[in-house]
Amino acid sequence: MEGECKRRGEGQVEIGVMMEAVHKVEAAPPQSTVDKMKLRLKETFFPDDPFRRFKGQPPRRKWVLGAQYLFPILDWAPNYSLSFFKSDLGISYAKLANLPPIIGLYSSFVPPLVYSVLGSSRDLAVGPVSIASLIMGSMLRQAVNPNTDPFLFLQLAFTATFFAGLFQASLGILRLGFIIDFLSKATLVGFMAGAAIIVSLQQLKNLLGIVHFTKKMAVVPVLSSVFHNTHEVLFLLLFLWSWQTIVMGISFLAFLLLARHVSIRRPKLFWLSVGAPLASVIISTLVVFLLKAQNHGISIIGKLKCGLNRPSWDNLLFDSTYLGTTMKTGIVTGIISLTEGIASGRTFASLRGYQVDGNKEMMAIGLMNIVGSCTSCYVTTGAFSRSAVNHNAGCKTAMSNVVMALTVMVTLLFLMPLFAYTPNVVLAAIIIAAVIGLIDVPAAYNIWKLDKVDFLVCMSSFLGVIFISVQEGLAIAVGLSIFRILLQTTRPKVIALGNIPGTNIYRDLHQYKDAKRVPGFLILAVEAPINFSNTTYLNERITRWIENENSMEEKETNLRFLILDLSAVPTVDTSGISFLIDLKKSTEKHGLELTLVNPTGEVMEKLQRANKIHDFLGVNSLHLTIAEAVFSLSSQNKLQQQEVSSTLFI
Amino acid sequence: MEGECKRRGEGQVEIGVMMEAVHKVEAAPPQSTVDKMKLRLKETFFPDDPFRRFKGQPPRRKWVLGAQYLFPILDWAPNYSLSFFKSDLGISYAKLANLPPIIGLYSSFVPPLVYSVLGSSRDLAVGPVSIASLIMGSMLRQAVNPNTDPFLFLQLAFTATFFAGLFQASLGILRLGFIIDFLSKATLVGFMAGAAIIVSLQQLKNLLGIVHFTKKMAVVPVLSSVFHNTHEVLFLLLFLWSWQTIVMGISFLAFLLLARHVSIRRPKLFWLSVGAPLASVIISTLVVFLLKAQNHGISIIGKLKCGLNRPSWDNLLFDSTYLGTTMKTGIVTGIISLTEGIASGRTFASLRGYQVDGNKEMMAIGLMNIVGSCTSCYVTTGAFSRSAVNHNAGCKTAMSNVVMALTVMVTLLFLMPLFAYTPNVVLAAIIIAAVIGLIDVPAAYNIWKLDKVDFLVCMSSFLGVIFISVQEGLAIAVGLSIFRILLQTTRPKVIALGNIPGTNIYRDLHQYKDAKRVPGFLILAVEAPINFSNTTYLNERITRWIENENSMEEKETNLRFLILDLSAVPTVDTSGISFLIDLKKSTEKHGLELTLVNPTGEVMEKLQRANKIHDFLGVNSLHLTIAEAVFSLSSQNKLQQQEVSSTLFI
Repeated sequence: MEGECKRRGEGQVEIGVMMEAVHKVEAAPPQSTVDKMKLRLKETFFPDDPFRRFKGQPPRRKWVLGAQYLFPILDWAPNYSLSFFKSDLGISYAKLANLPPIIGLYSSFVPPLVYSVLGSSRDLAVGPVSIASLIMGSMLRQAVNPNTDPFLFLQLAFTATFFAGLFQASLGILRLGFIIDFLSKATLVGFMAGAAIIVSLQQLKNLLGIVHFTKKMAVVPVLSSVFHNTHEVLFLLLFLWSWQTIVMGISFLAFLLLARHVSIRRPKLFWLSVGAPLASVIISTLVVFLLKAQNHGISIIGKLKCGLNRPSWDNLLFDSTYLGTTMKTGIVTGIISLTEGIASGRTFASLRGYQVDGNKEMMAIGLMNIVGSCTSCYVTTGAFSRSAVNHNAGCKTAMSNVVMALTVMVTLLFLMPLFAYTPNVVLAAIIIAAVIGLIDVPAAYNIWKLDKVDFLVCMSSFLGVIFISVQEGLAIAVGLSIFRILLQTTRPKVIALGNIPGTNIYRDLHQYKDAKRVPGFLILAVEAPINFSNTTYLNERITRWIENENSMEEKETNLRFLILDLSAVPTVDTSGISFLIDLKKSTEKHGLELTLVNPTGEVMEKLQRANKIHDFLGVNSLHLTIAEAVFSLSSQNKLQQQEVSSTLFI
Repeated sequence: MEGECKRRGEGQVEIGVMMEAVHKVEAAPPQSTVDKMKLRLKETFFPDDPFRRFKGQPPRRKWVLGAQYLFPILDWAPNYSLSFFKSDLGISYAKLANLPPIIGLYSSFVPPLVYSVLGSSRDLAVGPVSIASLIMGSMLRQAVNPNTDPFLFLQLAFTATFFAGLFQASLGILRLGFIIDFLSKATLVGFMAGAAIIVSLQQLKNLLGIVHFTKKMAVVPVLSSVFHNTHEVLFLLLFLWSWQTIVMGISFLAFLLLARHVSIRRPKLFWLSVGAPLASVIISTLVVFLLKAQNHGISIIGKLKCGLNRPSWDNLLFDSTYLGTTMKTGIVTGIISLTEGIASGRTFASLRGYQVDGNKEMMAIGLMNIVGSCTSCYVTTGAFSRSAVNHNAGCKTAMSNVVMALTVMVTLLFLMPLFAYTPNVVLAAIIIAAVIGLIDVPAAYNIWKLDKVDFLVCMSSFLGVIFISVQEGLAIAVGLSIFRILLQTTRPKVIALGNIPGTNIYRDLHQYKDAKRVPGFLILAVEAPINFSNTTYLNERITRWIENENSMEEKETNLRFLILDLSAVPTVDTSGISFLIDLKKSTEKHGLELTLVNPTGEVMEKLQRANKIHDFLGVNSLHLTIAEAVFSLSSQNKLQQQEVSSTLFI
């Protein structure tokens, strides 16, 4: 149709003349408050509509479905396929958390079994992950020194794990899954990079074996304590270290980084970067074993007891002195590990085209950690890297977790003596290689290119983590993100629209060069809910628009109509309604006529209700489209002018 | 144009055929990050554009304007007109704050003078106000008992006033005026009602003269302490009270309430409700004086020293034991009084059609209170009721404040002895009458009718104030309001659109009965910024839509296109962008083609930038209007089908 008008090449008044039927603005069919509340709650807490599949099923089927909902194992057990043997970074990650290596293995045994029963993702491989491990280690280290008081530290770790699980499960049960949505990608990119740097610094300690080391996590104290101990460092380098250690460490680090580099270049070879750590553990162990390297100054893990996880619920410590620390640690690690777990689960689910129920995942991961805390495990979650391996290996079911658990079990039962010869320096190398992978510079660069504010968020979490502390850094970033959302509502965009010649289309005058402003009309679009937080601003902003217009417009066609396009206003509250009422009055003071265009369902409904109370909507104050509003107003305006002239010339 | 189609009575594919020119989506002209930031900051902190008036003025004029901007007195002094003598509730309000009556008079002398120099509103009448007075009284009472330790209490009051002023001024200087916008009308209605009830309860104490009274502010302790002292109460009623007091109190209370009732019915008689208190003070004083009623058991204020405010900066108490209390009190009273002051200022400004600079008002009120705290005044602000009197009396300038200050000065200097005979019971009656006026049931009812969530906010602040405490009640209400804003972004509306037959208009299928869904198309509109907080939700929501459609649609016309209308999406962040990219991929998995319609300037810009990085926008993936998208897609689709068939029948 635009075409026709173009051919005729007419202004929009002509269009108006062609336009006969003017459409009424309708309100949505009435709906009781209770129903509305129900819907709102459903959208808030059950956005994924978990009970959809139950609809219209025979009761027996419903029972089956319900059982499958609770224990997805019933869903896939009939047709599972084995995943290939997968390596386990548990040992080194345990070191990240300043925990004894064996805890890492324990944590790779029980949790996968629990998840394979409760979890709904088919690709997720659960176990300890670097980021959660290092946060737990760093936060607990502020309360207890793991070197001087290892057992207490272990107790705190279990307790924190317990709280993490409790927190995660309750998030799921209370359907509050959306809380983790507030950790934006920008936040996480900055956070992980910062954490990685902190950890590498912390590794200095292990690498240089400094004894009097700061318990703090931030960069400044760490560095300072490195420098304060320089004499010690030099002493160590000169006398205590052996060239073998240095050679071994550097060579394995190089190997690991190379593996990661290759696997990034060739996604098909992804397993390389995951296999490499295990390989280097095995190789280094063999080397040490064969060359008796431990006698040449290479420190090794030493004897590890055989046997499966021993119960640890008697080690949970709810002593008031440490309760604060453990709860805080539990919550932070809980959220972080949830974020990684859910994110990876969703990623692979979408690759396979199936849905993951976020809240159910949270319950599964939460229970997994509660059980873990009672069986000598620390925080575990779905690990992205290993899940990727699962996925590339094309495993169809969560059975892979069972398989992994079994392999770990074998290790725990029979292979422990071999680990005795694993050199610590290799574990350090594995850690450094792992955390370096967390620094994602290209992602940060893309964020910078796309959205400067997001980049600010990213940087603030990065710098916050580095210079203040892990939790403060996170808090700042999240606070900024939330403040941004509030600001978008508190200072909404108000856009002036113009007509695109030869059409009924009205668009942003600033965005579309060929859009023309309609003489005598001021057409504004508000792009946010109109509520208490922005009515004052909108009032001032619109007044400014009107004044600018009046100053710009040449006299003969002075402003006569204000059209407010409400298409982009999803909701109004009582303040918003009274704002519209006041605007109506004040525009009349300016000698303008206010017209509202295309209010959405909820807005329309409230307008009607408000109109019942203080009747302010005239005949012409609602239109379905801007074009129709412009047409009917300008024509009515013509009539008035004619009347005026006729009265003059009688 | 819609008309034509109606006559022909065609479906929108026909319309499509008529539609030749398909319009390109344009991006806003490029703009440097710095400029964007500048604009954003300006809109955030200088929404009222205070420097507009300076633009393009000769330097000398600029100086004059600058001086007038700082001291509006220069602006109106030349042509002021006197307001008529206005009554002063200072004395009774001071009692509300548990302060000696004289402080009330002091606070009605200095602040008006300060405001008349700095303030920018012409109608605002400043002085003590009930709500701020009672908050200050109640909050300070929790730290110090005004009866046992009156001087310390006085010091705390001055200090709190100082902090209130400091807080208000800094809000203004930092351009953070929008903070008071977060006290929505709903919050205030509930808050005031709650506070009023608390105060009336507190007046029980003054009325019944209970000595061992709770220092708490909440209802429960107050009531309990009333009941625990019933024996004392009865004792008082039986032996210590005189029928004269009761008669006098009740009769004057009746008189005051009647006056308010009348003035509400007849807005013209507004001055009645404001004149009444002064009248009753004068009358009761005369009665007591003539009948020597003080000898018949009516307690009176007693001697008040003549003379103007004495300096009080040496009474400011920054002792660490009370610093917390005074600062908290200062901030709460500061915000509350600002809200009343600015609100009344804006109301009358809009009635007169002039603008009030919110941030400048804050500085003025803040400085006024800082000065006040050094001259024996407590928190003051613009009072709505008395400003209304100013307005109805048609006074054009803030000179009315000067006049009022002068009258108060005369009182302070010469008329003090008269107050000696003013009975306390009348002041109690004035307070009760004043605070009962704060309970606005009709407003609460309207809120309930308009917006249930707002009503929830209102109730929570009401109940919070009554059962927990003034500040907690406020905090809860504000928290709820903010949470609501966040929720609107976190759970945005996603609406399915349909075509209104015979037009190019697409509207909400739920809202418009005659809108028809276009076979083969799913047309969704998102009504919020797409950002980190809602991408997960949108993903699940849209997947649900697609599944529902596929289940509903009969096979022969199965879903082929997903049109996403971005008209109501003001901004996206990086998460939003990657959401759109993923959606493109996942829809392709579902065998759908995704098309974006009418992205706003910022969104369009980011889409282009993102497209440079990971090229995902096809030729057909952007359209200006839904109608054009539907047309071009369905026609292209026809072509494909023809090809298919031709290939089949070769």
